Amino acid sequence: MSEPTGLIAKSGIELLTFSTPNGYKAAIFLEELKEAYGLEYTWQSVNIAKNTQKEAWFTAINPNGRIPAIVDHDRGGLAVFEGLAILGYLARTYDREHRFSFPVDSDEHIEAEAWLAWQHGGLGPMQGQANHFFRVAKEKIPYAIQRYVGESERLYGILDKRLSGGREYVAGRGPKGRYSIVDMSIVGWANITLIAGVDLAAQFPNVQAWLDRCRARPAVRRGFAIPTEPSYSNENVRKAVESDPEKAEESKKLLRESKEKYGYKYSSP
Amino acid sequence: MSEPTGLIAKSGIELLTFSTPNGYKAAIFLEELKEAYGLEYTWQSVNIAKNTQKEAWFTAINPNGRIPAIVDHDRGGLAVFEGLAILGYLARTYDREHRFSFPVDSDEHIEAEAWLAWQHGGLGPMQGQANHFFRVAKEKIPYAIQRYVGESERLYGILDKRLSGGREYVAGRGPKGRYSIVDMSIVGWANITLIAGVDLAAQFPNVQAWLDRCRARPAVRRGFAIPTEPSYSNENVRKAVESDPEKAEESKKLLRESKEKYGYKYSSP
Repeated sequence: MSEPTGLIAKSGIELLTFSTPNGYKAAIFLEELKEAYGLEYTWQSVNIAKNTQKEAWFTAINPNGRIPAIVDHDRGGLAVFEGLAILGYLARTYDREHRFSFPVDSDEHIEAEAWLAWQHGGLGPMQGQANHFFRVAKEKIPYAIQRYVGESERLYGILDKRLSGGREYVAGRGPKGRYSIVDMSIVGWANITLIAGVDLAAQFPNVQAWLDRCRARPAVRRGFAIPTEPSYSNENVRKAVESDPEKAEESKKLLRESKEKYGYKYSSP
Repeated sequence: MSEPTGLIAKSGIELLTFSTPNGYKAAIFLEELKEAYGLEYTWQSVNIAKNTQKEAWFTAINPNGRIPAIVDHDRGGLAVFEGLAILGYLARTYDREHRFSFPVDSDEHIEAEAWLAWQHGGLGPMQGQANHFFRVAKEKIPYAIQRYVGESERLYGILDKRLSGGREYVAGRGPKGRYSIVDMSIVGWANITLIAGVDLAAQFPNVQAWLDRCRARPAVRRGFAIPTEPSYSNENVRKAVESDPEKAEESKKLLRESKEKYGYKYSSP
């Protein structure tokens, strides 16, 4: 498939994205907005392995050279980058009935913003590092593995507690909360924890139940296919574990020994 | 000094903070608001080395157990956590004349939100890791050092380009931009780059000039003293380098060799 060389739409929202947790959050929200309000949008796949996001046409949209980014052709080509800012912009502009967000400056909005920032500055970056050191990096570095898998566990522990006692979604007042952009911001990360050393089903059952709840939504399923399904979803990784139990045991051992070597002890918060 | 055991104020904003870049951003904004509008606030020092932020009274305010957090006693004790959310809340609620922020949903606001998120999800977490592996961690791990110092360099390169061509502040339209919470969110990190392997004066002169500009503001200076001055400010580190050039050379050598070992090449974006 050839890579994009510039914008292609003339109206509506244009999403530049790839199959990563941060990419999916924008795609999922756009799918929700399409289903709820009929909002049309266009997307292009920007292959980060080919560094398309470092091309001049892309960095004119996002100077940081990262996906996702959006351009709103109905607002003079306004460009928005960083997942948190994209969710915020789309919510304020297109979620007019607040089906997936909260009125600006309501108590719920202020609390939701804190959880969005918690994902954006904590869970995302730290699980990203766990993923890198546990799975991607050729050199297996026990200190870094236990540091980042451990911090990811701490953060999922926080989330698990938040989702305890019958709470169904991360933000929203009332005992159950309600589905919002906060959930969308986290779901792509929760969907690929196993490869980063965190087993939600075994360790954080409330998060697992919440993940299943989010994944049951058609718009979430459609968003997870833009541009392609996540290769390292927990489901896929569980299948790989079953088909190659020896390799899986090796991985588990590496994590266990990394934790032991540095006296790691789970604690959350 | 004994640690706090709960909230102490009855009215106004109460800030729970410590001498870190994320702590300073809240203190600096509250100092600016105090100077501009007479907004009164109270602060307490929460010593993160003593884990006071993990105490039950604190996690009732911020479930994530991290500083900074604020409580607005004039809004029924509303708690806000995460630096980005704190800046956003204070801006919308107390910066009524938009002296340090932009009207919600203006083009300037949308762009500022992207840069705030860039700091919150990129510069902060990544420089934090550079700081950890280059300075704090007992084990010196070349792979991790070049990974995080390198990413911090990439990010400061982005910022340097943003601040080129006469732009004086990160956000705001017009050729010079204008001072805002975006600058406040970054200044605490830019102030301690040297210890994390990045020399602004030598590598990123536009960022250095911007840092000097921000630091010339009385409110920034006062914020940097809450609760105490940063031990590892670039100024202090430069003095330490002069007084112990051998140790400094060792540090430089470690960074140089770490980069060489993995074929690190600066590139931004």
